[in-house]
Amino acid sequence: MAEKLWGGRFAKDTDRLVERFTASIDFDRRLYRQDIAGSTAHCRMLARQGIITAGEAELIVAALAEIEDEFGRGQFTFDPRHEDIHMHIEARLHEKIGELAGKLHTARSRNDQVALDMRLYARELAVVTAARAAGLQQVLLAVAEKHQAVSLPGYTHLQRAQPVLLAHHLLAYFEMLQRDGDRLHRCYERASVMPLGSGALAGVPYPIDRAGVAAELGFLALSRNSIDAVADRDFVVDFLAAAALIAMHLSRLAEEVVLWSSAEFGFLELDDGYATGSSIMPQKKNPDVAELVRGKTGRVYGHLVAVLTMLKGLPLAYNRDLQEDKEALFDAADTVLACLEICAPLLQSATFHGERMAAAVEASFTIATDYADYLVAKGLPFREAHVTVGRLVRQCLLDGRRLGDLTLAEFQRFSPLFGADVAQISVAQSLSARDCFGGTAPARVREALGLAHELLAENLAWVEQRQGL
Amino acid sequence: MAEKLWGGRFAKDTDRLVERFTASIDFDRRLYRQDIAGSTAHCRMLARQGIITAGEAELIVAALAEIEDEFGRGQFTFDPRHEDIHMHIEARLHEKIGELAGKLHTARSRNDQVALDMRLYARELAVVTAARAAGLQQVLLAVAEKHQAVSLPGYTHLQRAQPVLLAHHLLAYFEMLQRDGDRLHRCYERASVMPLGSGALAGVPYPIDRAGVAAELGFLALSRNSIDAVADRDFVVDFLAAAALIAMHLSRLAEEVVLWSSAEFGFLELDDGYATGSSIMPQKKNPDVAELVRGKTGRVYGHLVAVLTMLKGLPLAYNRDLQEDKEALFDAADTVLACLEICAPLLQSATFHGERMAAAVEASFTIATDYADYLVAKGLPFREAHVTVGRLVRQCLLDGRRLGDLTLAEFQRFSPLFGADVAQISVAQSLSARDCFGGTAPARVREALGLAHELLAENLAWVEQRQGL
Amino acid sequence: MAEKLWGGRFAKDTDRLVERFTASIDFDRRLYRQDIAGSTAHCRMLARQGIITAGEAELIVAALAEIEDEFGRGQFTFDPRHEDIHMHIEARLHEKIGELAGKLHTARSRNDQVALDMRLYARELAVVTAARAAGLQQVLLAVAEKHQAVSLPGYTHLQRAQPVLLAHHLLAYFEMLQRDGDRLHRCYERASVMPLGSGALAGVPYPIDRAGVAAELGFLALSRNSIDAVADRDFVVDFLAAAALIAMHLSRLAEEVVLWSSAEFGFLELDDGYATGSSIMPQKKNPDVAELVRGKTGRVYGHLVAVLTMLKGLPLAYNRDLQEDKEALFDAADTVLACLEICAPLLQSATFHGERMAAAVEASFTIATDYADYLVAKGLPFREAHVTVGRLVRQCLLDGRRLGDLTLAEFQRFSPLFGADVAQISVAQSLSARDCFGGTAPARVREALGLAHELLAENLAWVEQRQGL
Amino acid sequence: MAEKLWGGRFAKDTDRLVERFTASIDFDRRLYRQDIAGSTAHCRMLARQGIITAGEAELIVAALAEIEDEFGRGQFTFDPRHEDIHMHIEARLHEKIGELAGKLHTARSRNDQVALDMRLYARELAVVTAARAAGLQQVLLAVAEKHQAVSLPGYTHLQRAQPVLLAHHLLAYFEMLQRDGDRLHRCYERASVMPLGSGALAGVPYPIDRAGVAAELGFLALSRNSIDAVADRDFVVDFLAAAALIAMHLSRLAEEVVLWSSAEFGFLELDDGYATGSSIMPQKKNPDVAELVRGKTGRVYGHLVAVLTMLKGLPLAYNRDLQEDKEALFDAADTVLACLEICAPLLQSATFHGERMAAAVEASFTIATDYADYLVAKGLPFREAHVTVGRLVRQCLLDGRRLGDLTLAEFQRFSPLFGADVAQISVAQSLSARDCFGGTAPARVREALGLAHELLAENLAWVEQRQGL
Repeated sequence: MAEKLWGGRFAKDTDRLVERFTASIDFDRRLYRQDIAGSTAHCRMLARQGIITAGEAELIVAALAEIEDEFGRGQFTFDPRHEDIHMHIEARLHEKIGELAGKLHTARSRNDQVALDMRLYARELAVVTAARAAGLQQVLLAVAEKHQAVSLPGYTHLQRAQPVLLAHHLLAYFEMLQRDGDRLHRCYERASVMPLGSGALAGVPYPIDRAGVAAELGFLALSRNSIDAVADRDFVVDFLAAAALIAMHLSRLAEEVVLWSSAEFGFLELDDGYATGSSIMPQKKNPDVAELVRGKTGRVYGHLVAVLTMLKGLPLAYNRDLQEDKEALFDAADTVLACLEICAPLLQSATFHGERMAAAVEASFTIATDYADYLVAKGLPFREAHVTVGRLVRQCLLDGRRLGDLTLAEFQRFSPLFGADVAQISVAQSLSARDCFGGTAPARVREALGLAHELLAENLAWVEQRQGL
Repeated sequence: MAEKLWGGRFAKDTDRLVERFTASIDFDRRLYRQDIAGSTAHCRMLARQGIITAGEAELIVAALAEIEDEFGRGQFTFDPRHEDIHMHIEARLHEKIGELAGKLHTARSRNDQVALDMRLYARELAVVTAARAAGLQQVLLAVAEKHQAVSLPGYTHLQRAQPVLLAHHLLAYFEMLQRDGDRLHRCYERASVMPLGSGALAGVPYPIDRAGVAAELGFLALSRNSIDAVADRDFVVDFLAAAALIAMHLSRLAEEVVLWSSAEFGFLELDDGYATGSSIMPQKKNPDVAELVRGKTGRVYGHLVAVLTMLKGLPLAYNRDLQEDKEALFDAADTVLACLEICAPLLQSATFHGERMAAAVEASFTIATDYADYLVAKGLPFREAHVTVGRLVRQCLLDGRRLGDLTLAEFQRFSPLFGADVAQISVAQSLSARDCFGGTAPARVREALGLAHELLAENLAWVEQRQGL
Repeated sequence: MAEKLWGGRFAKDTDRLVERFTASIDFDRRLYRQDIAGSTAHCRMLARQGIITAGEAELIVAALAEIEDEFGRGQFTFDPRHEDIHMHIEARLHEKIGELAGKLHTARSRNDQVALDMRLYARELAVVTAARAAGLQQVLLAVAEKHQAVSLPGYTHLQRAQPVLLAHHLLAYFEMLQRDGDRLHRCYERASVMPLGSGALAGVPYPIDRAGVAAELGFLALSRNSIDAVADRDFVVDFLAAAALIAMHLSRLAEEVVLWSSAEFGFLELDDGYATGSSIMPQKKNPDVAELVRGKTGRVYGHLVAVLTMLKGLPLAYNRDLQEDKEALFDAADTVLACLEICAPLLQSATFHGERMAAAVEASFTIATDYADYLVAKGLPFREAHVTVGRLVRQCLLDGRRLGDLTLAEFQRFSPLFGADVAQISVAQSLSARDCFGGTAPARVREALGLAHELLAENLAWVEQRQGL
Repeated sequence: MAEKLWGGRFAKDTDRLVERFTASIDFDRRLYRQDIAGSTAHCRMLARQGIITAGEAELIVAALAEIEDEFGRGQFTFDPRHEDIHMHIEARLHEKIGELAGKLHTARSRNDQVALDMRLYARELAVVTAARAAGLQQVLLAVAEKHQAVSLPGYTHLQRAQPVLLAHHLLAYFEMLQRDGDRLHRCYERASVMPLGSGALAGVPYPIDRAGVAAELGFLALSRNSIDAVADRDFVVDFLAAAALIAMHLSRLAEEVVLWSSAEFGFLELDDGYATGSSIMPQKKNPDVAELVRGKTGRVYGHLVAVLTMLKGLPLAYNRDLQEDKEALFDAADTVLACLEICAPLLQSATFHGERMAAAVEASFTIATDYADYLVAKGLPFREAHVTVGRLVRQCLLDGRRLGDLTLAEFQRFSPLFGADVAQISVAQSLSARDCFGGTAPARVREALGLAHELLAENLAWVEQRQGL
């Protein structure tokens, strides 16, 4: 059985170098469960349709279950002569049940088989990744709820802009992950198209029951065109694009963890268990985890580029180039899964220095806009109010003072519209004033936390319903 | 009004070099309709909520309509002192209605304003692109229907593999575009989230009616977090990822047009109006259009990489880096729109050489699998049948014969299972045998054509419902 | 002359849509100088070799000079019927000198002609970009020299690590640009290979003098293989890869400008002419220029990906896909040129707050390593010294003290090796101690400044020698 | 020694998840030789400079040699508690020689240590890759020499264009690899800059001899700025960019192998040992190796994007993100090395069907340009000659004839300039006529083969001189 399955037409064995170069067993071995699940469903269908006998199917299915068990227990023996996971399983089946093993490949080709395996795998990845994303949302929500009273400067252009609640800031990341979850749900659906029955590219000349196989394997739809079914890797790109966005979101979170952990910001201190030291500088406490999360973004982007490049310009139908879809998918998934996983305890165990944040809000001009809005309320067009307060700020900067330090008389030197009530402008008032849906007013943030709980519950339910598959 | 709107705090004018470097008017001018639509809806809402008077709103809205008209007629005058489209429109508004123009910016920031404009634009792009994709589907379907009787070798590894119908082959591209359409529908939904009311990043301190603005502008949802709303460009990446897949699909189609137009294949001849010549070689008829479609794939991938790179590691909330989302989006959209547009008449006007395709099927061993299936039907395990036919093929290659040329006695030298009925194996029989859903059997392809009509009708309806917006 | 040059073989005109889709005149018009220079040299050679007469050459060359003049004065009229710059110039030549114009294309094809134009252009870009890079080096050097006494915390992991001189920090960027310059020199050499004479792909059947043309145009070498010469765009990728590294370096510089301009760091204040304000927040002074420089990195990376993708899998020789090399090259060059240009005055006009930097050095544990080195000097293995000082730092953090505040007795509680001389450890001593080539000791930084002047002089000389071409 | 080396400052152990997430030992273990070479040179220098004693150095160096030997024999034991290769080696050293091991880290940091290791590794990769590239050049040259008499249609736009010699065609790839070799030589130089002595980022406070270390390790230069030295990974990007171009070149070669192996072209037949079969179609002989070479291009591009993305926007100096440079470099190198390796025997063992190529030349209009050139020689401007021959070709296509079949009278119906000597136009004459440097004339190709031998000899000499290092 070590002889190549396609040896009849060839006068010579494959060169060793070629075997090594084309072999995929080192990485596609992780498809063993999917391959066996697909073969089992295919085999049962062949029996139902009378293409093989019930007895034959029973023997094959039982042997496949044994093989899966061998993999599960780490007792499967790999053999460099078999290039991929399909050949490994088929060869082992042959060892167990002899010539009968050959019948399993009836009405099937490696082209539709590998498409099936990859779709089952990608579908599962969508669920697992969605679960991890929801897990991180859970932590963000918990940390946000714990710090509802904390305010900090919201930044634009990394300049202090306006006061926001820390909970509001954290919920921005919740929203990003919510979109990621939605994309993963779409990935699930797009992967969930059953390609078996497409054969090498033209369909198969057997009275198979594709719908039955799809139902057994929990697919949502059947592929509609056999040529497309073996040539299509859109579902891999879909996952990689979703993964790239997850990585990008985490890179933004990681950037903020790095910034906030700096001596200059001092907003956040990582738990000692989630920071690392320096081999040479005894005082260092470094946010290596966040840096690596940020750096690994490149890796995920790279895999997306790799698969898109690979697919460019390929004529129909299957081409061996497609084998390059696997490592990219696997490593991108491993990467975002690990990053999502580690960000959760990293945030949960971190200390947020609310007093440093509060001091930063107070020490700066983050409520300057509120002074402009005050003038607008007194009838000034916004653009003029803006200029007036801009001049106030410039004067304060020159004098080393804050807006709250000015007397009414001083205010009135810039605009006669200022009245005694200008003293009521404060960070708390600024926060409360932003009281529209999605704004940072405490009441709105409470509303948002409630909404986030609902969304999270839906996300978890979605995952749970699909994890059984 | 040429003075910077934010001049109050500054002691010095912006350097000319900086104005030139940061200006976006050269490319964001194409957002004028979106900007005016957003301002109009915002203004009406301000009046409804009593933030400005009904009379003020009327004046503003009327002036905005005039400005839109000026753009439409190509009579709007651009001024290098105004950096972007927002400033241009606001400055023009000021010319028309004076200080009142300033009130339009109440309860709004450039950060949520540009997010709104981009979302309106991206939403529209999703519709327009879906329309073009459906247009190409229509042509593929028409060409497929016209050539229902034509068969050609289906290829894997660019080697002739099995006979398929040309219609079946063309419908593989229909399926790719069907997925592209689905992705564009998702892009539409993801762009359709209303960010106004997020202000600079924290929300706005006015009793605005966000739902009302969203309803007027046809948005499906409100953004839930003001920080996220001004920092988020996922919807741009979503579109670029969808565009990358469209470009990839078209690159595969284009590759086949190039291949099939070659002297070696000779399956397809481009219409003289859709081919180009050589400046030096008088005999040349080149498939330049298909080559450019293929080559432009890189450009779309590049824009996806550009925006993903730009977003990597940005701290919250708005950063000026985000301005780099526009040219990438615009050029990627222009590119896929132009490619989708030109592929339609290119295919429609081309001549498909059915007789060359048929000859290629007959001259090759594309039905070798059918001989193997024949032996399986006689009881041989598939793997053995495969080896037997492989040997037959090798012998034929050595003798320069085809499988159909062999006598029964010759067949039986390779396997006693061959009987007189082996003579019935033919291309027509091979095609008909692949009679499962998605297969290339003529009946199945007719079924697929019917299904394609239904899908296309849905796609067109989806577009039509949204084009009015 | 508006008729297609290759019309003989075609029965039909090119479709309008095709003309629009394949036209490159909108972007390749910027090659006009290169195209005319190449044509002029080619024409003179044709006359020298007796392929055309001296009189013919004179007429052609004079007309070409007139055309170049028309371009230079902005008086050249573009015509949508001519697809590219070559056709525009040839058509205009025909208007001026009639049928004789046709002789210019003798012994030349558009394939080698466009390769020539692009190589001339890329060569020039290498020089111009090297000049800009040297210009920024000049500013970095000037700013470094101006702040030789200023020290700040050097960072690793964005944590304060060890004291460094600001001049040393700035010279790190000088080094990056030095490597960029070297890469651009290589780009120059790689572009400087003369392709004319390759014809369409096979060479030309005329007794041409390739070396003469190369000499006239200042090329360093002749292409050695005609097929490769028309199919090769490595030199474009070389430039794009160099541009990507420049963009990356500038993104790091820009990131630091953004960080240092933040309220939290406060190390740097941009000149009002090089910062921008906010439409809504009157207090804001934003580092938009630095953000855009950072964001534009994505764009340059994207163009690199675009051209690499386009080239992937192209069979020999010329394919129309290659036309996609131009906009990527042009925009990448424009982008890095603009970024290099604006960073120079941005840095030069900025105020560096030396006192804030000094305070940051003093307030932190940046000299902890020096305490460890002190213990090593007393005989402790480094690893143990590290642990000891780590414990000291932990104690200080708990007590809210700095290392310099501890008494000798307190030091000795952690290690008996501490002696009275521990009091000599200071920032100044820490800096001076790093006295090896490339280190931050003031003497070494002076040495480095001197070396930088030498390197800069070489860079400027390199540019000057090539700008005349 | 399993305790973290930087434990002093920390109150808590690193979390297991963090250890797993940040560990690099799974991939950086392949730097063991470089790490030990660097440590050995560093240690010897410390002794020469009197920083440690000669006896200490001897013990350390001997123990390091033993450790290298353990690695070499596969007997080194990895321990998950040590995160990277540096810690593994240091821990093992500690086991062997106790506390003395700690002295090795004197005047060194992990930041400059890892920079050194990576530079040594990248330098070696440049040599190894250059060797493989030269190896493939050797094969191309041999195959070209073997087929000097064979002509085939040269293609542009995948349309038959003009006759070329197969040797000329193959030498186009020789030229690409020649440029690749040149880039690798530059990579070698750029990697060959010695960073040790930069310490963590500021230099080290010991009287080290950097030049001595550089000399011992064969470096060409010293890094000039310690901050830059630990923050710089340009040399990794340089290699990845060179690798991307190699991969691109091989993708073009691979594309042609796939095309030429198709039934339609039939120019090339792969050796049975270098082709693979199908699991389902007995007749198939697939060029999987070439397809994988083509597909792997994406992977290399992806790694380039990954590292560029990772570096974008990183502030100085070292950040942990930089760890992501390794797997990208390693896998890109592995990939191009494997592809270069396998292409050599693939080409060498393939059969080139000269008769099919010759038939393709003869059956087509590849010499149409020669007819035009003929008319030019008779005095017609080239543009008119082109149109005339275009009309001739169109007539031939309509009549199903070839140009060579026409009578003189028929020729003269298109132009009176045709004379009896038109009969001399032939493929052989067309080839011979392209007799300028770089052209396809047999004499020129012989010249090119000679030149290629010289270049190859230089390449091999370059490699040999550096392999000893």
